[in-house]
Amino acid sequence: MEREWIRYLRDRLPPHPLLRLGPGDDAAVLQLAGADQCVVTVDMLTDHVDFELAEVDPRRVGRKCLAVNLSDLAAMASRPLAAVIAMVLPRRGGKDLAVALYEGLLPLAERFDLAIAGGDTNSWDGPLAVSITLLGTLTERGPLRRGGARPGDRIVVTGSFGGSILRRQFEFEPRVAEALLLHGRYRLDAGIDVSDGLAIDLAHLAEESCCGAVLCTDAVPVADDARRLAERRADDATPLDHALGDGEDFELMLAVPPDEARRMLAEQPLDVPLTAIGEFTAEKGLWRTDAGGSRTELVPRGWQHEFD
Amino acid sequence: MEREWIRYLRDRLPPHPLLRLGPGDDAAVLQLAGADQCVVTVDMLTDHVDFELAEVDPRRVGRKCLAVNLSDLAAMASRPLAAVIAMVLPRRGGKDLAVALYEGLLPLAERFDLAIAGGDTNSWDGPLAVSITLLGTLTERGPLRRGGARPGDRIVVTGSFGGSILRRQFEFEPRVAEALLLHGRYRLDAGIDVSDGLAIDLAHLAEESCCGAVLCTDAVPVADDARRLAERRADDATPLDHALGDGEDFELMLAVPPDEARRMLAEQPLDVPLTAIGEFTAEKGLWRTDAGGSRTELVPRGWQHEFD
Repeated sequence: MEREWIRYLRDRLPPHPLLRLGPGDDAAVLQLAGADQCVVTVDMLTDHVDFELAEVDPRRVGRKCLAVNLSDLAAMASRPLAAVIAMVLPRRGGKDLAVALYEGLLPLAERFDLAIAGGDTNSWDGPLAVSITLLGTLTERGPLRRGGARPGDRIVVTGSFGGSILRRQFEFEPRVAEALLLHGRYRLDAGIDVSDGLAIDLAHLAEESCCGAVLCTDAVPVADDARRLAERRADDATPLDHALGDGEDFELMLAVPPDEARRMLAEQPLDVPLTAIGEFTAEKGLWRTDAGGSRTELVPRGWQHEFD
Repeated sequence: MEREWIRYLRDRLPPHPLLRLGPGDDAAVLQLAGADQCVVTVDMLTDHVDFELAEVDPRRVGRKCLAVNLSDLAAMASRPLAAVIAMVLPRRGGKDLAVALYEGLLPLAERFDLAIAGGDTNSWDGPLAVSITLLGTLTERGPLRRGGARPGDRIVVTGSFGGSILRRQFEFEPRVAEALLLHGRYRLDAGIDVSDGLAIDLAHLAEESCCGAVLCTDAVPVADDARRLAERRADDATPLDHALGDGEDFELMLAVPPDEARRMLAEQPLDVPLTAIGEFTAEKGLWRTDAGGSRTELVPRGWQHEFD
């Protein structure tokens, strides 16, 4: 079976000019194209946590597993280079599942010119887990870090937020090209991709930058799906609550100096809208204001992996 | 919990000169030290398949998860550079388990001067799965591949084989330094690390090299643990059967031109013995001979991940 699987991969994976040695050996060999630094990130996604395999086309799962990693590279303003893919499959139906996962992720890999450098495909009497490691290169501007936001910097986001569970968790576009364009054209002090939730990822950005942040809730771009979800669910959560807490939007959140933010917002250089939703503060903490000017503490809600 | 875990990692992980940006951001940034190619490999190990968490100190599990990957780099004659570690933990006791896994693998990482570049630590209602990706660099001799064995090349192995389940599956030494020394001093046509089993990995090496192989069973260095296991178990398997089929020896198996093999075996440049156990043939297939000269087909036994 393993040999058969390697044969499938070798037949199916498109050749890539930077891949000197692909799947089937003990390791892959990658040409680094003169880079002297490389960016590396890993995300492991699992059944019943990041998706429900029983309820979704496995090709969408495969796409998501790669897309969340591409979003991490976007958050560093890194150009994707190569992926290594490890998975453990349920024993029954594992082969078909593995093929479907690859069929789902390969179009995205091709679109981002990503070399599939190798992988490890296993099986067990347990649910699906997929771990993808991505390598990327940097532009001369270097990495976009979480820790560089300064008091007074505007909080600028791409796209809109909330209700990703309805559709966008599987269909979102990793903001790789957007991050590279913004990082090349404007001065960005810090950046993150919103995976856990707008409020909690803002808290991460502020904490890493040793500052605080005020979020102007009226300015938050609320996705149509956040409204749909609020209508559909019987709880008290408003569309704004969904926008602040749902997570898996995979939009960029940036810390931008005020003048640069003004220019960026006027120019709107992306296909997706850029919106200023608040600013970073010298005082540590997280607050929300609205058009009425009231200012209250913002308690970050969002996804956290629980283990104790 | 996630923030607390990141703090643990940042406090615990030793700094590394090549790590420009470590755990806690969206990705890590690694200095490549002038390398123009990099080697990348991934192995995912899971509870009940690669270890039984209920029966073994989790520090030994952590060590094994890293060591099998180092063994893959050894098989490429690659110098280890950095690791990224993804794991999904059972929810209950996950934190202590994660700490124990790291405490088990960190001494090995330090010994091989490996930068821990980042990771992804998750939890779920399922058993432990650990996926480690390693990056390595190459010497000027390039990678040691599986596909270069030629008819007439001797099959040379390090160490001894069989019974790894008793002890060595957790305690084996990845043959990184050994592979680099041999690759630097002798002409090696091909190499692999014996993970699935001596016979099946010989089949892999022969198949990738489009040739066959004859194994001289009397020459195979049988480990003491293979004898112990044969005595202990009630089945008919001999010590040699264990040596040929058990796997997880993580010794090197090399294809070496005859003159080079003679020199290498005479010089014995390693702390561990080098033994010639047969040769590659133009005719495809796998055979075994013994001192009596009888030649029969060798049916490769060994570990294969089953999924269908």
